[in-house]
Formats: sequence, C-alpha cells, structure tokens
Amino acid sequence: MKCTELQNSFSLYKISHLNISMARGKPCPEQLDLSIPMLDIFNSNSNLVINDIDYRNYGILDGIPECKKMFSYITGLKEENIIVYGNSSLSIMASLLDKSMIHGVNGGIPFSKQSHIKWLCPVPGYDRHFTICEALGIEMINIPMHEDGPDMDLIEEYIKDPEVKGIWCVPKYSNPTGNTYSDEVIRRFARLKPAASDFRIYWDLAYLPQSTFDGNYEPLLNIYDECVKNNNEDIVYIFTSTSKMTFPGSGVAMLGASPTNLKDIKNTLKYQTIGYDKLNQYRHALFLKDEKTIREHMNKHAAILKPKFDLVLDIFEKEIKDIARWSKPKGGYFISLYVKNASEVVKTCKELGVTLTDVGSAYPYHKDPDNEHIRICPSYPSLGELKTASEVICLAVKMAYNK
Amino acid sequence: MKCTELQNSFSLYKISHLNISMARGKPCPEQLDLSIPMLDIFNSNSNLVINDIDYRNYGILDGIPECKKMFSYITGLKEENIIVYGNSSLSIMASLLDKSMIHGVNGGIPFSKQSHIKWLCPVPGYDRHFTICEALGIEMINIPMHEDGPDMDLIEEYIKDPEVKGIWCVPKYSNPTGNTYSDEVIRRFARLKPAASDFRIYWDLAYLPQSTFDGNYEPLLNIYDECVKNNNEDIVYIFTSTSKMTFPGSGVAMLGASPTNLKDIKNTLKYQTIGYDKLNQYRHALFLKDEKTIREHMNKHAAILKPKFDLVLDIFEKEIKDIARWSKPKGGYFISLYVKNASEVVKTCKELGVTLTDVGSAYPYHKDPDNEHIRICPSYPSLGELKTASEVICLAVKMAYNK
Repeated sequence: MKCTELQNSFSLYKISHLNISMARGKPCPEQLDLSIPMLDIFNSNSNLVINDIDYRNYGILDGIPECKKMFSYITGLKEENIIVYGNSSLSIMASLLDKSMIHGVNGGIPFSKQSHIKWLCPVPGYDRHFTICEALGIEMINIPMHEDGPDMDLIEEYIKDPEVKGIWCVPKYSNPTGNTYSDEVIRRFARLKPAASDFRIYWDLAYLPQSTFDGNYEPLLNIYDECVKNNNEDIVYIFTSTSKMTFPGSGVAMLGASPTNLKDIKNTLKYQTIGYDKLNQYRHALFLKDEKTIREHMNKHAAILKPKFDLVLDIFEKEIKDIARWSKPKGGYFISLYVKNASEVVKTCKELGVTLTDVGSAYPYHKDPDNEHIRICPSYPSLGELKTASEVICLAVKMAYNK
Repeated sequence: MKCTELQNSFSLYKISHLNISMARGKPCPEQLDLSIPMLDIFNSNSNLVINDIDYRNYGILDGIPECKKMFSYITGLKEENIIVYGNSSLSIMASLLDKSMIHGVNGGIPFSKQSHIKWLCPVPGYDRHFTICEALGIEMINIPMHEDGPDMDLIEEYIKDPEVKGIWCVPKYSNPTGNTYSDEVIRRFARLKPAASDFRIYWDLAYLPQSTFDGNYEPLLNIYDECVKNNNEDIVYIFTSTSKMTFPGSGVAMLGASPTNLKDIKNTLKYQTIGYDKLNQYRHALFLKDEKTIREHMNKHAAILKPKFDLVLDIFEKEIKDIARWSKPKGGYFISLYVKNASEVVKTCKELGVTLTDVGSAYPYHKDPDNEHIRICPSYPSLGELKTASEVICLAVKMAYNK
C-alpha cells in the first residue's frame, strides 16, 4: 500500500469516531454470563452452617475446606499447602512483598533494613507485577523471555548475587507473550539455589485454569512437586485466583506454599485480618465443584475467546506478515505484537479511537528497550469491534514502518 | 457465701461439663438471620450493569457509588471522603500501618526508617489493635479510659513527643468498656496539634451503626467536621464496616479521610489491588438502602442483644455487687468487669467450661497492670447459656475474692 492510500484509510477511520479499548485482559460480558448461575447457588433457604461452622460468622483465617479443595483441583497442590484469601491474587503478591519489606522472609532481615534489593523480571511481562517492585523501590533486572520460558542461564547467573531476592513468573499463557514454560525450564526453577536464603519465586498461575482455545487442557508441570524432589520447597510462592473463571474482582484467590512458608505468612496474616469472605468462598466451591465441572466451564470460556484470537491473528497474517511478528498463543488473554516504532503505532491507534496498552508497560520502568512491543488484548471487544480495531492496528503498523 | 459453699458450687458445675464461649464479640445466629434476605437481594435475573459499568468485571478502585452512599448514611461523611474496601476494617487499619512503615504518611519518612515509633493506647482497649502495633514493633503507651473517653490531658501532653505517631480510638460503645466519647472529648481530639506531622488518629467506628439496647440511636459527634473547623482534617483516619450489621467476615468496610490523605493512600492502594468485590458492595448497598432501613435493621439487632446484656448485668448486680464493679453500656458488644485477681477468675471459669477472653488482652503486651479487668461478651451464647455462664463467673469472682 502506498503512503497516500494509508493516509486515505487513516482519514476514513478518523471520521468514524471509533471508541474501542484493547488495553486490558478483561473477560467480555458473554464470559461473565457463564458464571451467572453462581448467583443462585445459594440463597436465603440454604444451609450455611457446615460441619458446625457458621460460614456467615467470623472465623477460619486460612479458608474454608471446600474452597481449598477447589483450588487443589485447579493447581494440583495439596489442601494443606493452600491459604484461601479474598478477591485478588495480585493483592496477595503485593502483601507478601510488603511483608518482606517490614518483617523479612522466614526470620530473615526485613528488605527495608537491607541495603539494596533486586528482582528478576522476565520481559515482556505483566505491568502490575513491575509496578509493585517500582512502588517498593526494588531494582528490577530484565530477563529475556524465550518460547520455552525465561532465559534460565541468565537467571542461574543472577541468583549468585545475594541482593537478588525474587523473580516474577507467569508460567502458563504468560502475560503478555502467551507462551508456556517447558517442563525443563520448570525443573531448572525448582533446582535453583540462590545465594539469598530469602529469595522467592513468585509463581503466578493466573491463566492455569484456562483451556486451550481448541478446548483442550494443557497441564503444567507442578513446580511444588519438583521443588520437594530437590528439598527446595521453600523457594516458591504459588498464586492463582478465579478472576478468569467467574467474576473478576468478585472471585477468590489463593496462595500455595511450603509448611515453613505458610507458618511464616500466617504469623503476619493473623494481625492483618480475622479472615476472608467465607460466603464467597463457599459460593465458588459449590459452583466450581469438581474437576469435570471446572473443565467444562473453562471450555465454554475458550469457545468464546477462540474466534476473537483467530480473527486478530488472521488479520495480522493477511496485513502485516512481512513487517511485523507476533506470538501465537494456545490460550490465555494476550498476543505480543512486535513492530517497528511501537510508540508511534499506539499513538496512531489512539488518534483513531483504538486504545492499546501503553508501550513500555510490559517492561520494568515502562522502558521497552527496542520500542517494539505492543500487548494485544482481544478478549473484551465484540468480533465486529475486533475486526475494525485489528485493521486500525495494521494500518498504524504500516504507517510507522513507512516513516 | 462460705468457702465450703463456694467449693460445693464449684464441684457441681465441674461435673456438668459446660462448654460456653464468651471470649469474642461475635453476633449470635439470630442476629445473622436478620440479614438472610440479603442473599436474595440479587440473583441470576438481576441487572448488574449500573450506569454502563459492569459490576461483575474489573474496575473501580475506590468503591461503587451506591456503597459510598450507604457508608455516608452510616457515618455522616461525604461520599468523596470515602473509599470502600473489602470485608474487614481491621485489615484496612493494618494495611495503613504497614503502609506507614514502608512508605510513610503523606510523603513523610517511612516509620521503618525512623529511629523509634510510639503509639497511644487507651486502656482497656481492643486487643487486635494492640496486636498490630506489637507485630510492627511500635512502642505502646497506656492512656487511662474515663467515662467520657480517654484521658485528654495526658494525650495532649504525649503528642508533644515527635516519636508519638498515632492513637487507637473506638469512640462509640468502646471495646471493651462500652462507653462513648463525649462531644468535648471529640472536639479536643479534633484540635490536637501533635509534634509529628505524620501523627494520625485511628478512629474505629466499629459500633457506630448500633442502636442502644433500648432501640434508640445515639449520634456521635462527627470528628471529621470538627477537624475541618480546625483546619486539621488530615489528622484522622475513620473506619467502619458492616461486620456488626450483616455477616461478619462477609461484609464491606470503609475508610474515611481528607482529600490529601485519600490521595496518599490511593497511591499505595493502586499497586496493591485492581479493586474490591463490587458485587458484595452492591449486595450491601441494596440491602442497607437508606437511613430508615438501616435504623430498623439495627433496632432488630438491639432487640436480640438487650435481654442478653440485661441478664448478665442483673446477675452481676445480684451476686457480686459488693466485691466487683463493671461498665453498664447502652449499646455495643462488651461489658468491662473489674474484679480482684482477674487471672484467677478466668482460670476458674475455664476449669468450669466457660471461656473468657484472656486477662491482659485488653492491654498492650497483654499486661493488665492491676490484674483486674475481664472483658465480658454476652452477644453469642443463648440466654440459657448466658445465665449459667454469668453464675459461673460470679462464683469464680467470689472464690478469687476470698482467696
């Protein structure tokens, strides 16, 4: 396409006053409708006193047994390794880092009393992870992401530094690259022997429950089991939530960890709260009641997401194959698009009414070193909006390429 | 009663194998039943997209407007001064102290970087408040509680020390004394000019929504308005929740503060979470929909609590008038009982199957300087259990007095 043609297309989109957001990995209304039956799962006639415990009252710091079992189905962890929290796994991660700052990790010196703290950040990665580190003044170190996971050679090198205290990982359908860590990468994580005894892997299984877009389930190697084999089970904190299963923001979240870690964490938790919302925990446990139910439910999500991802990827393939590259995820919520002059692309899209995540968001300190990465979130818009938005993105990519 | 008679009563109770807990201020099942209709307040047929915002999805960091309005009815604060959080006001307080440790208060030096931090603690007070300070290594200073509130002369003296950074207050139906601060005491709080600019009053309105046991409502002077009159609105953080209105642990909680404080707090909050459970916020806002509804609902609570408090106080009056004293609260969840050798009383009760809060719990570091205070929680047991438990307490008080 010539420059004048591009300019003509630009003008045409400009006057159509689009308003489409592809900035966040939000489930769409049709996905939320899948969990509407959960709102009827109990009501004023239901029994809420279970094994002599009144779930309407105070009590149970670490989560109701039914909800631990549900998360055990989802993660493969044992119930005794699980604490069920409130509505957000991100807030568990933030609170554990806050705790590490104030109280240290398992009796270690509080991070706030140590001279300098560093954190490993596979990039591109999840912006909200990086924001936590930034808010706490923790130095972030970029680790390149490969198809099978982050660069393990580099990680094994960096952890020799006792100031390096942790790493962010989204091992399945990673945000935003969509790739999944290989068994070998996970085994190498489980074998890590960092110089710092208070080093922790923050293992964010945000998309673990997801089916592939084709409606299959790809199990992920259980890092906790691998850690146990290496007598290394204290190295990992495991997180997931129902945010991508039922209602984001009104779900339940969990932490999985070793007995030693759980004891340390409960020690802090018990001054911070009397307990979390047991009624919502129970609501979820009844709704996502066994593995079969969970799989069927997640396949329905996949069936809604598949045509959206197919559509975006088809348009990219047709329009910008020669001037851009992108990830082709089997599941999850994101596509990573790599282009020339990404910030220009995002700016053009914004001018045309298509909001994308800011360039740099997927990198520590919002600095994309190559100004090339754009996070594409196809889940929320309708198919019609997605078609238009993808065409706008392709136009903007071409314009930036020709500049 | 002679010693042998006391011993005989002891033996009789001993063989009846009682098992009654009066240790915590938990609502009883009949109180929880009052809120059961809330479980039907919306269901799978309800509209949950309000003003174009889908309450089932991510979004809204500081709470839905309907729930801010509900808390505005409850507290008299303006909606713009309110953030609605998750299920626990205690966890808001703990998180604000965590924040003060890590990030400081309004740009001040983080508490963890200051040499020494002190906190004022009206006693007897709420054990979980003191536990937060203890966990954070904050030195607690006892302030005597009078009928009209804590000793303000002493407080005005202590705040000249720049290491003194805050005070715990439960100004209405205080835990555990049951007294309410006078208007004059509240005005003096609003006028405080501490040496430390990062000094904050933690104003815990846990029992503000309560009616008197007689079914009236005693308004509390609005400290925020008084602070504004003194250009001193940054000095106070205000907390309440629905824990004593609907379901403890499955309710919603709020923070009220000045625009400057809210800006500072949201700055931290935005890395800690994407938002709280909007569906539960909406459930509560629909159920506790206006001031009339709230008052009627709280009067029903009072009607359940009144005979319980009457019963306990009548038995105290009949049995131990001459050897003990106690508070006579108009509302709330607690009676403070002052006796000789309180730890002996609690121990004897435990032997007889009546669990009371540990002596010392109402004091920093669990140290009741006079070994005289027992927190009595009449809300949870049935009237029959309460009668027996109160008689057991009186027996134990007499035995300890005669020792």
